[in-house]
Amino acid sequence: MGRTSDAKTRLLATAMELMYTRGYTAVGVQELCAHAGVKKGSFYHFFPSKRELALAVIDAYGQSVRAMWERAMAADDPLYERLQRLFELAYNTHRTFMESQGQMHGCLLGNFALELSCHDEGIRQRLRQTFTDWVEALDRVLYEAVTNGDIPAIDTTTTAQTIVAYFEGVVLLAKTQNDPEVVKRLAQGAVHLIEAAVHAHMLLRG
Amino acid sequence: MGRTSDAKTRLLATAMELMYTRGYTAVGVQELCAHAGVKKGSFYHFFPSKRELALAVIDAYGQSVRAMWERAMAADDPLYERLQRLFELAYNTHRTFMESQGQMHGCLLGNFALELSCHDEGIRQRLRQTFTDWVEALDRVLYEAVTNGDIPAIDTTTTAQTIVAYFEGVVLLAKTQNDPEVVKRLAQGAVHLIEAAVHAHMLLRG
Repeated sequence: MGRTSDAKTRLLATAMELMYTRGYTAVGVQELCAHAGVKKGSFYHFFPSKRELALAVIDAYGQSVRAMWERAMAADDPLYERLQRLFELAYNTHRTFMESQGQMHGCLLGNFALELSCHDEGIRQRLRQTFTDWVEALDRVLYEAVTNGDIPAIDTTTTAQTIVAYFEGVVLLAKTQNDPEVVKRLAQGAVHLIEAAVHAHMLLRG
Repeated sequence: MGRTSDAKTRLLATAMELMYTRGYTAVGVQELCAHAGVKKGSFYHFFPSKRELALAVIDAYGQSVRAMWERAMAADDPLYERLQRLFELAYNTHRTFMESQGQMHGCLLGNFALELSCHDEGIRQRLRQTFTDWVEALDRVLYEAVTNGDIPAIDTTTTAQTIVAYFEGVVLLAKTQNDPEVVKRLAQGAVHLIEAAVHAHMLLRG
């Protein structure tokens, strides 16, 4: 059984790597099997299709990024410092990748969203759910920061959405410039989104 | 000569439509010619390759969006109102498209960035330049708003970058949700980015 689950893990890791760097369409089942050292018959034992494997890749990527966000945000430091740390972690990840691969590949979910979400309703829904998971995780962190008195009251859900959108946009710009430094340089914008949400909420309350 | 330049225009318009809705790789020269009603020989008379046509599509799309931004931002209203109008225009465009096509296709540049920028250095450079053009146009608007006393002093260039990143991220989220309303709902975030930049600049100056 050890070897069987190992083959599944290898297929998932290989798909993550190849689809992240080259997209969904360009990567075939045969190539995935060759890279993972798994027979084609075994592939279809674990995944009914390439598409099912792509859904598993979305889940795995979404969970790993969410875990990174939660680690970065879990400490007792002030919210703004934790948010900066989150962008720093993302910066470090992209820089490490850039150094080893010579190229920045952006966010796998963003890449899939732009390659596939118009052509495959199931994949679009899974991407949507994953972004929603991120928003909810961030929403919880913001809500706790308000409850603890770390920051004044804000509309936490909308603010969490603006930050996830901003994060995706920053990674997209960085990819276009092939320069992870963009992620570092624009990190402060996320703090700005919260500061201004605080201000807007105060105005609303008079 | 009228018909000749007409064929070129038709090819460009067809490529814009097909590549926007289906991406670069999925659209072939034969299909482009058939849709545009142009012979294959004529295609290569105007464009040495599909790639050259894609570069022309990037330019045309970049210029049309930039023109939309400049129209939205040209009036004498306060900056924040003009910025809201810019997001409203984007919202209207995506909603109209959604109503006629049943699907939101996001930003062509974002789509191309995520499909191609890792695989084609020339296309990545063109996308980078187009985003830079948008940042510069917005930077100028912000600079004028500061000069006119419409808003207090800010780091206009970094703020323009954060807004373009935010704009791309919002359109990406909206595409994943297949819902142009997201663009409308998150528009206020762009104003927040400026408000907070004003605040940050004040703190810096003490």
